[in-house]
Amino acid sequence: MTQWVYNFGAGRNEGRADMRNLLGGKGANLAEMAGIGLPVPPGFTITTELCTEFYRNDRTYPADLKPQVDAALALIEEAVGLRFGDGEKPLLVSVRSGARVSMPGMMDTVLNLGLNDETVQGLERSSGDPRFAWDSYRRFIQMYGSVVLGVSHHRFEEIIEDIKTEMNVLEDTALSAESWAHVVESYKDLVARETGKPFPQSPEDQLWGAIGAVFGSWMNPRANTYRRLHDIPADWGTAVNVQAMVFGNMGEDCATGVCFTRDPSTGENVFYGEYLVNAQGEDVVAGIRTPQPMSEARAKEGELSMERALPEAYRELLTVRDTLERHYRDMQDIEFTVQKNKLYMLQTRSGKRTAAASLRIAIEMAQEGRISHEEAIQRIQPSSLDQLLHPTLDPKAERVILARGLPASPGAAGGVIVFSADEVEARAARGEDTILVRIETSPEDVHGMHAARGVLTTRGGMTSHAAVVARGMGRACVAGCGGIRVDYAAQTLSAGNRTLKAGDWITLDGSTGEVFAGKVATIQPTLSGDFSTLMGWADSVRRLKVRANAETPEDAAMASKFGAEGIGLCRTEHMFFAPERIGAVRQMIMAENEAARRRALDTLLPFQREDFAALFRIMGDRPVTIRLLDPPLHEFLPHTEAELEELAREMGETLEAVKERHAALSESNPMLGHRGCRLGITFPEIYAMQARAIFEAAVLVGSETGRPVTPEIMIPLVGSEHELRVTRAEVEAVARDIVDKGGVAVDYTVGTMIELPRAALTADRIGEHADFFSFGTNDLTQTTFGLSRDDAGSFLPHYIEKGLLPRDPFVTIDREGVGALVRIAAEKSRAVRPGIKLGICGEHGGDPSSIEFCEQVGLDYVSCSPFRVPIARLAAAQAALQNRQKQTA
Amino acid sequence: MTQWVYNFGAGRNEGRADMRNLLGGKGANLAEMAGIGLPVPPGFTITTELCTEFYRNDRTYPADLKPQVDAALALIEEAVGLRFGDGEKPLLVSVRSGARVSMPGMMDTVLNLGLNDETVQGLERSSGDPRFAWDSYRRFIQMYGSVVLGVSHHRFEEIIEDIKTEMNVLEDTALSAESWAHVVESYKDLVARETGKPFPQSPEDQLWGAIGAVFGSWMNPRANTYRRLHDIPADWGTAVNVQAMVFGNMGEDCATGVCFTRDPSTGENVFYGEYLVNAQGEDVVAGIRTPQPMSEARAKEGELSMERALPEAYRELLTVRDTLERHYRDMQDIEFTVQKNKLYMLQTRSGKRTAAASLRIAIEMAQEGRISHEEAIQRIQPSSLDQLLHPTLDPKAERVILARGLPASPGAAGGVIVFSADEVEARAARGEDTILVRIETSPEDVHGMHAARGVLTTRGGMTSHAAVVARGMGRACVAGCGGIRVDYAAQTLSAGNRTLKAGDWITLDGSTGEVFAGKVATIQPTLSGDFSTLMGWADSVRRLKVRANAETPEDAAMASKFGAEGIGLCRTEHMFFAPERIGAVRQMIMAENEAARRRALDTLLPFQREDFAALFRIMGDRPVTIRLLDPPLHEFLPHTEAELEELAREMGETLEAVKERHAALSESNPMLGHRGCRLGITFPEIYAMQARAIFEAAVLVGSETGRPVTPEIMIPLVGSEHELRVTRAEVEAVARDIVDKGGVAVDYTVGTMIELPRAALTADRIGEHADFFSFGTNDLTQTTFGLSRDDAGSFLPHYIEKGLLPRDPFVTIDREGVGALVRIAAEKSRAVRPGIKLGICGEHGGDPSSIEFCEQVGLDYVSCSPFRVPIARLAAAQAALQNRQKQTA
Repeated sequence: MTQWVYNFGAGRNEGRADMRNLLGGKGANLAEMAGIGLPVPPGFTITTELCTEFYRNDRTYPADLKPQVDAALALIEEAVGLRFGDGEKPLLVSVRSGARVSMPGMMDTVLNLGLNDETVQGLERSSGDPRFAWDSYRRFIQMYGSVVLGVSHHRFEEIIEDIKTEMNVLEDTALSAESWAHVVESYKDLVARETGKPFPQSPEDQLWGAIGAVFGSWMNPRANTYRRLHDIPADWGTAVNVQAMVFGNMGEDCATGVCFTRDPSTGENVFYGEYLVNAQGEDVVAGIRTPQPMSEARAKEGELSMERALPEAYRELLTVRDTLERHYRDMQDIEFTVQKNKLYMLQTRSGKRTAAASLRIAIEMAQEGRISHEEAIQRIQPSSLDQLLHPTLDPKAERVILARGLPASPGAAGGVIVFSADEVEARAARGEDTILVRIETSPEDVHGMHAARGVLTTRGGMTSHAAVVARGMGRACVAGCGGIRVDYAAQTLSAGNRTLKAGDWITLDGSTGEVFAGKVATIQPTLSGDFSTLMGWADSVRRLKVRANAETPEDAAMASKFGAEGIGLCRTEHMFFAPERIGAVRQMIMAENEAARRRALDTLLPFQREDFAALFRIMGDRPVTIRLLDPPLHEFLPHTEAELEELAREMGETLEAVKERHAALSESNPMLGHRGCRLGITFPEIYAMQARAIFEAAVLVGSETGRPVTPEIMIPLVGSEHELRVTRAEVEAVARDIVDKGGVAVDYTVGTMIELPRAALTADRIGEHADFFSFGTNDLTQTTFGLSRDDAGSFLPHYIEKGLLPRDPFVTIDREGVGALVRIAAEKSRAVRPGIKLGICGEHGGDPSSIEFCEQVGLDYVSCSPFRVPIARLAAAQAALQNRQKQTA
Repeated sequence: MTQWVYNFGAGRNEGRADMRNLLGGKGANLAEMAGIGLPVPPGFTITTELCTEFYRNDRTYPADLKPQVDAALALIEEAVGLRFGDGEKPLLVSVRSGARVSMPGMMDTVLNLGLNDETVQGLERSSGDPRFAWDSYRRFIQMYGSVVLGVSHHRFEEIIEDIKTEMNVLEDTALSAESWAHVVESYKDLVARETGKPFPQSPEDQLWGAIGAVFGSWMNPRANTYRRLHDIPADWGTAVNVQAMVFGNMGEDCATGVCFTRDPSTGENVFYGEYLVNAQGEDVVAGIRTPQPMSEARAKEGELSMERALPEAYRELLTVRDTLERHYRDMQDIEFTVQKNKLYMLQTRSGKRTAAASLRIAIEMAQEGRISHEEAIQRIQPSSLDQLLHPTLDPKAERVILARGLPASPGAAGGVIVFSADEVEARAARGEDTILVRIETSPEDVHGMHAARGVLTTRGGMTSHAAVVARGMGRACVAGCGGIRVDYAAQTLSAGNRTLKAGDWITLDGSTGEVFAGKVATIQPTLSGDFSTLMGWADSVRRLKVRANAETPEDAAMASKFGAEGIGLCRTEHMFFAPERIGAVRQMIMAENEAARRRALDTLLPFQREDFAALFRIMGDRPVTIRLLDPPLHEFLPHTEAELEELAREMGETLEAVKERHAALSESNPMLGHRGCRLGITFPEIYAMQARAIFEAAVLVGSETGRPVTPEIMIPLVGSEHELRVTRAEVEAVARDIVDKGGVAVDYTVGTMIELPRAALTADRIGEHADFFSFGTNDLTQTTFGLSRDDAGSFLPHYIEKGLLPRDPFVTIDREGVGALVRIAAEKSRAVRPGIKLGICGEHGGDPSSIEFCEQVGLDYVSCSPFRVPIARLAAAQAALQNRQKQTA
């Protein structure tokens, strides 16, 4: 005989949490709760196998089901001392579906099953509350009528509306027992009319009707669609849970409540929650009565704590709390009911919590010995740390949402709307808070982004210029906010039919992508001791080093503060835009010959040298990877006719000459154009100047500190070994010239970005000339997918929505394609140079899933923006633990 | 004893052609000629080993060298009946260097060595020609003085100039024996003054001086530089060749000539060449006397054939010709001298020839049984067939070169300069020959390119739009001609300080990239029977199928004529630009919603259906691969304000709406943007219309012919299997709708372009949904290298010049990078779908080296522009033979 039915509760428990496939999620959890001795209302689960059998046999049940259900029902009756269909002490049950995974579309719940014209009177008598009894009965008819018998839900509502009009009341709660009895009559008429049959009075018929409805709902169209979309096999089936009803609203010795075993907001180890005497679960959330505190210690004047009102149940609940935390080893969110002084546990699950609470709970549970340090590390979502590092919107503050874009750089920020970087700088100098609003940003806007509180763009994705730079600076940023239209000429932005103008206040939430009109209050972050405890634990288990992408001394200092173990990417071009330099940069670009170019570069040399010296002073003997000039030269030229005219004037050139050079430099696909080492090869004097600045700075700082500086010089956009061979030779020639003369040791290495598919595919040849590789996975993603991150906005969201791509590949590394190239490059390069240092410096370096991949491939380090360093440290620790578990498994 | 000296000629031959490493190229060849019985002037070679020994021992000779040289010299004396230094019958010799490979920078040649004040008189007497004797002596002093003794060449020339002034003559030939004797005296004075020693009178000293100069020149700076650049090891060394002088200018029984064993211009099997009685080799080329024909049959009135003048030597030469062709199995280019009725062979080598001659010679030699069919196939450079398929410039025509660009599409063409496609079309309609001149072309210019004789652009590379489209149409094209500046407003083009205006005639040579001012006569191609013979032989050995890239019925017909076995790439977007369609295309783009888009597509449907029907009718049951819409939509919109205004008027839209849509569609990197299947996925109705047109056309033509049509529907720019899965399903849904109803079999398949690195890397997953892959190596090259073909002009030429890339990767496939991806994709896809059909349809499909690669990877077919089909057929045959040879080796 197959066992189709599993009992739970009342000491006759047959299931466990790990029997989810057979009992469904809900059934397994109820059994688990009962199994650890919690007072769960008794019940039974009909297995998912029965569901499969049901469909295999043309929607019929096997003959041995009914005896098993009858026996299980008898056990419930025995346990609670009530009888199904009894005119005096009727047992009422709930019937619920429960598949392996939670699945919308299936039948949910029928409560109070077992009521009929006779048992309702028994309930009236046993509860002493006629109103409760008739309300329960009408609720049952309404639920059963709609979900089992298919009568439209609104037809029932109409009847209530009619009687409320008739009785001249506004709220359901104002209706009397008599009124509900009238409703019951009307409901029964309605069901008879609609279904052609009277409402079933036999509790047994009711039960089998509900069971059949649950199994039938497994194959309804909504459930089928959901399964198809989520790849859930139809033969998994659903289980049915039948459980004794308990009531918290049968008198003053009854109550119902919702609790957390610790404070979900702060994580503090106190019993946290609220309850109501003589109430049902829905009353607690409905807000008509004010819920009361659990403990006397937390009760304010005029409040009645559960500790005082129901001391026995409260004591039992304290024991339950302890049992739960011991068993589940995590903070729990529980629902309970007290029926006539007896405590029943209805549900427990891991409680949702704030990032701060998550951190505190994990640390304290580890300190209490409930979980290990490793488990504590794995309890924290790395990305949730963002909340601890950036200002957040005050959850209580009112807000008017304008539009929603991409959550490009976390944190909340408010300020007045400003449409140009120069004006942002000017206003910031006067102490004003500003938000820089642009259609998109370019390197010319960087000084404005720095001076602004936050940045809003209407175009561009998660790795657009605005997003990358803002994350690097720790500025809040909402990018690609297509719902907003910017009109620079009119100095307005509009969303829907609202228009705001320059100088109006807006607030951004860079963690959600929301843009609000006006001021919304924010909360400043404070870093607790728990944070550094967690970081310390994470550092002790991670293998990957964590570096930061940083150019300015401020960024480098911030990165150091967050624990960066070096700089993984210093983008030298960002250093070219400062007002005192851009002139020389443009002179270099406009130069007609090498001599003129060299003159312009000579002007830049001292600036660059000081840039690098400042970084070396901050980073000490930690490595600093400096990428030589990467972007195409036209990025340094202005674009409008007026700006070009000004440039011509400044340079003493004709406008025509300037425009001609501008046109000659313009490119159809700049991403694939004359940039990276291609510049260094056609204009070797540029890289020579940069190398000179690096080595002179290294000698200078080395002699200041007496300890060797360790610059790592990185050649960008290498596609063939010859490019690296030639540029490396030039860098080494400069090094010989300077370092040998300097008389101070400089521990330099030369390597390359791997950011082109060809570089990855020929990594064995390129590796011959490289001391290190840094995977530039932003560009590698663009070329591997043939996908411009600036242009992908027109279709990438559609792709992700439709599941054509699982995730935005610019946020989380695409393991199948881009990742395959990273693997190929790692294997090929190590084959020729076993000790080659491998890292990643794309935006993926701060993404937890991508960091997990880096751990699997065995890279040496990840590098990310300074504010993501703590996230990366935690994610690296989690990845190391996962890898270790996989290896021991 | 080491043998340092190897004799050749006069029946004492010690070398062979395969002893090149020991004897150098020249020495080995002379020995080979002598070895097959040709009358080579006797001589000897001092080995390259001696050179190495010379340097190993501090530039001294081993003791056993001199006796060997003396003995070899004695053998020459004996063979020619003259003695070195003899006052009556002096032996004169030449001394030449000769390394393994021809190497500029080393000493070349000293002639007439052995002359001195005494032997010159013997030569005067034995030749009976005092002028000849003294001229020979002064030439010897001049050569020896400059190359062996290091006296500046121009000092000798000054002496001649002085005497010509003195004698009041203009030409050297006008100087008498006496004058040359004076020159000799002055030369000797010069040498004595410059070197501090008299000119060496001892022939033996002269000989050792010359030998030492040859070995010394091996290490001179120019030779060292050349070796370093070409990776030639210094220890290869050079040989020295010493050979008896023969003279064709010692009387009327002497002659000299240059011949080809067959006509190098037509390939006809006749003895072809010219000679002069009583002359030296340089006289034949100097053009002062008119060379005479070899055979009496070819002699015109007033000409003296060698057959008549020197019948005995001529008969011997005929025998030599036969011997040479038998031995070398190829047409030979020979130099000979007749000295006193005795024939001497000075040189033989494979003769340069025209493409037509190459073809005819290979075919006839095979038919004569001298070489096999396989060898004949391998004798023809596939790319040389271009000359047979396109008009060429008349080599005799005068020409004024304006500038030189890239040889983007072969053939010569002339016409008047026209700067707009519309005007080209208008003028062509009036029967005018035009050349379309543009800075660059875009799809809007295609109708003009079709109507023009040729296309000239000033920007863009070998795979720019102009180049690809012109090759497809078989129009001559010179692209990227940076030396020309186009001014559309002024309607002029200028090169250097020349300016031409619209309506002026220019001539292009698309095979060389040259642009000429004015008309240059051209020669029309004629395809001989040899051509089809060769193609037949090629077809019988090749394994790769050859298809053509074609959209129009004209192209398809041309492709059929050239033997295409199907269409490998029909680019449907080219069909969208015709004037009667572009309106609907633009309406489709401007559509605000799906319904409006569908209406526009409905207008296009009948056009597309007829496009495909026409192709199917021409191709019959040969496969036709149709690529669904690929380029980004903005390519179909005009760009200037005026054009946008016109478009707005036509469409009844506001200019603002049109401009807004234009701006919304514009992209930073269109190559990596919203195109290919990304369009098909966001606007599924576009692909649905195209699929409908294909299937309706297939049903139509299938029912006309009673034979099933075989369309292959190709989805472009797939990067993930989901893209192909979704678009394939949509195509199949349309097929079910139409084909099932049509009642006619349509043998269709669905596949994809592999043109993104990610597609290659995930080819196993994509292969699950694909019946075929076509490698789109143009785009794959762009993405693998991260290199925009439109922008690469600013650095790619520099890269190729400096050897950073061996070849333009857009012309010849990059085997290491792009090729690696092709291999990965082939292996991965065959692992999941062994029978998957694999082809290539990028520009590489018509490039011989790339075709060789395709053969190695085992692709099923290549597809190229129609005019390259014969080239591809031949290259595929050669690749198959090479592969076969490699496998048996």
